[in-house]
Amino acid sequence: VTDARYDEGETAALARFVADSRWDDLPAPVRHEAKRALLNWLGCALGGAADPAIVNALAAIGPYAGVPRASVIGYPLRIDAPNAALVNAMASNILDFDDTHLATVIHPSPPIAPAVLAIAEAEGATGPALLHAFALGVDVACRVGTAAGPEHYAHGWHISGTCGVFGAAAAVGKLLGLDAARMNWAFGLAATQAAGLVESLGSMAKSWNIGAAAKNGLTAALLARTGFTASTRGIEAPRGFAHVLADGTSLGALLDDLGSRWYLLENAYKPYPCGVVVHPVIDACLALRAEPGVTVDTIRRLELRLNALAIERADRPRPRDGLEAKLSLQYCAACAIHDGTVGVAQFDDARVADPLLASLAPKVGMVGDPSVATDAAHVIASLHDGRVFPIDVPHARGSVARPLTDAEIEAKFRALASATPWIDAACVIEAIWQLDRAADGAGFVRLLRRSSQ
Amino acid sequence: VTDARYDEGETAALARFVADSRWDDLPAPVRHEAKRALLNWLGCALGGAADPAIVNALAAIGPYAGVPRASVIGYPLRIDAPNAALVNAMASNILDFDDTHLATVIHPSPPIAPAVLAIAEAEGATGPALLHAFALGVDVACRVGTAAGPEHYAHGWHISGTCGVFGAAAAVGKLLGLDAARMNWAFGLAATQAAGLVESLGSMAKSWNIGAAAKNGLTAALLARTGFTASTRGIEAPRGFAHVLADGTSLGALLDDLGSRWYLLENAYKPYPCGVVVHPVIDACLALRAEPGVTVDTIRRLELRLNALAIERADRPRPRDGLEAKLSLQYCAACAIHDGTVGVAQFDDARVADPLLASLAPKVGMVGDPSVATDAAHVIASLHDGRVFPIDVPHARGSVARPLTDAEIEAKFRALASATPWIDAACVIEAIWQLDRAADGAGFVRLLRRSSQ
Repeated sequence: VTDARYDEGETAALARFVADSRWDDLPAPVRHEAKRALLNWLGCALGGAADPAIVNALAAIGPYAGVPRASVIGYPLRIDAPNAALVNAMASNILDFDDTHLATVIHPSPPIAPAVLAIAEAEGATGPALLHAFALGVDVACRVGTAAGPEHYAHGWHISGTCGVFGAAAAVGKLLGLDAARMNWAFGLAATQAAGLVESLGSMAKSWNIGAAAKNGLTAALLARTGFTASTRGIEAPRGFAHVLADGTSLGALLDDLGSRWYLLENAYKPYPCGVVVHPVIDACLALRAEPGVTVDTIRRLELRLNALAIERADRPRPRDGLEAKLSLQYCAACAIHDGTVGVAQFDDARVADPLLASLAPKVGMVGDPSVATDAAHVIASLHDGRVFPIDVPHARGSVARPLTDAEIEAKFRALASATPWIDAACVIEAIWQLDRAADGAGFVRLLRRSSQ
Repeated sequence: VTDARYDEGETAALARFVADSRWDDLPAPVRHEAKRALLNWLGCALGGAADPAIVNALAAIGPYAGVPRASVIGYPLRIDAPNAALVNAMASNILDFDDTHLATVIHPSPPIAPAVLAIAEAEGATGPALLHAFALGVDVACRVGTAAGPEHYAHGWHISGTCGVFGAAAAVGKLLGLDAARMNWAFGLAATQAAGLVESLGSMAKSWNIGAAAKNGLTAALLARTGFTASTRGIEAPRGFAHVLADGTSLGALLDDLGSRWYLLENAYKPYPCGVVVHPVIDACLALRAEPGVTVDTIRRLELRLNALAIERADRPRPRDGLEAKLSLQYCAACAIHDGTVGVAQFDDARVADPLLASLAPKVGMVGDPSVATDAAHVIASLHDGRVFPIDVPHARGSVARPLTDAEIEAKFRALASATPWIDAACVIEAIWQLDRAADGAGFVRLLRRSSQ
């Protein structure tokens, strides 16, 4: 290897890139994507704030929390920045509605955005500084995830946690102005506390993985700022991250196209808070509902032609609760046709028990077809009155080929914020779009509070 | 497998054992060993408190610390319990003077004792409750380490961190009175945040592994108390700890002799703050020094016959700093002969530079002998005046065959506490020996403060 960048080691090179990066280096689409991701993230955090996992976490941590310098989203509460990062990260991932880097299956914003926001609140940062740090953090997390390779997730690592911690360290380190040497230590510290097991999915522990990644990444940056040392080869060393938590074979991808390929541009946002394989069917059923006289009752037969993966994962005619309903083609189709929307409310356990929604399932047939892409669906509805409606969805909304528009992300935010009546969603949305001109990068969190708070 | 305990899963069985354990179940030697380990740990924490890693950690964390309910050992400072556990754990491991479970190479007390102490201070606990929780924590950490098997450490995991987190969760969970179901969640939470890379040894990041284990284990127990759920099979599940962070082949050892074999009784305490392979040579050289007229100058030749491992690890004639001196047979022999003691002061970088101590190295010869055990040494000193002194050390002080006596642990504590002039070491020692009768289990930390604090 003769490339000079390898002489200093991969971890050091990545650290230097982050430390040296200037806001002007980010192409305009990357800057705009940072705002889109942040708006999407903020909605998810508001939507998840009341979940029992968050209530429990606040009950556990609250009595030990520190100087109130950072906001707990969705609560009239400020706590210390590391714990605010923890709780807000947990909340933003809990609905399974957050963003996804599809190639690695990393959810980038939940571990990174709350860390950078908490430090921006506590120590101050301009809007561009916050967006810049956040965009770099996402780039670093996805690069580490790519360098971990497919074996990493398959082996049992909850990749949003194990790689998110690097992103949080990069983002907070950038916000704190760490030089390349200290950024390098921050990455070594992130490497040594990278954690999270897939075994935790399905319990509240899943959320702790995300929260801990945010908090540990933030803490890594705070430690490195003081001169707290770590290995300078935390990712590539024989006993480093890529060899201990992965097989090391994909390590070369860590620095590929550094500064020219921005992973943030590969970020996807879900229009519906459920399994991504179900999304094209929901699109088709929402289109179906627009036809006159189509209801769950008037449908005689609903034929789905899908990629086999969707059927394998989500042929679930009788989901028992909201968690199972998120992977039920039959239930989600019924929600789309009956409710005309598939949002957070549709996955309340009580809503899942509605017999009217369950009545669609016996009418649903499905055929696996390898020629149909995972983001596509062909749906044919036959009504009792003899009419037949074929609907083709070549690409689901929110897929890479058909990304959510800004307006769709705004609508998603409004829906998620609607449970918090005092929030003026239009005002928050405008603040995010204006963030690259804001003197106070964290100022928008004040818009989430009641005026009296 | 027909044993009923396996029907509930290994993690659940271990959790039930901890939840059901009563103080009366602990044999008297286990209770006494808990006091010995605690006294040894407290000295190490005091001795390490001024290290730059601790100063940096306090600078990083201090501004964000919470309600001051737990003491930072060696400082006139109280902070929130999770962060106190973090900092005290770091301090107690930093001198490489802490206890060791030799079979797993886990240092049990640093991640566990500070967690249980911090919660005892913050929420109250009797002396027996504290000792009981601590003893159970050590048992759990060493059991998980045994179940991880030798491949775990060899693969690159810093085992005191990855297994210490289970011990801290068990100890704090016991102190909080968790029932078996919540203890089981606490273990699932510990499993999903088990972390620490061997790559971090040699930098301050090593200390963060130990501190994070203490803090994360403590937090796992706090979370579980509120009903925060986790996998009930965190250790044995296919995507659980034993299969993701180890090869799973030693899992069966987790529950062997549960309640009859107490791992705390296998705990060893170092008499010298340096590599354990050097210890028998130090013993020999201290004996040699007692002979009339023996000095570094009067020695013509010093022949060491040792296990080859000791030579491979510690034949280091010219150590450049304190860290290297800890693995230098030549330097440690000179300290023993000249200073008559091998303590923390001998590993100051400035002390290592003393030419008089370095002058012994050219006179030292060493021969590897497979018939000599790793805890043994045969030393022959030939003096310029023609006298020859052969010294045999069949077992080093502090080895399993020749454990430190209570008086030796007391002396070690006094030496480590001597840098903190206002501490009445005799008073602290007496408080630890009386801990099984103390109403306030954490009361002894008040003896570490100046009277005005």
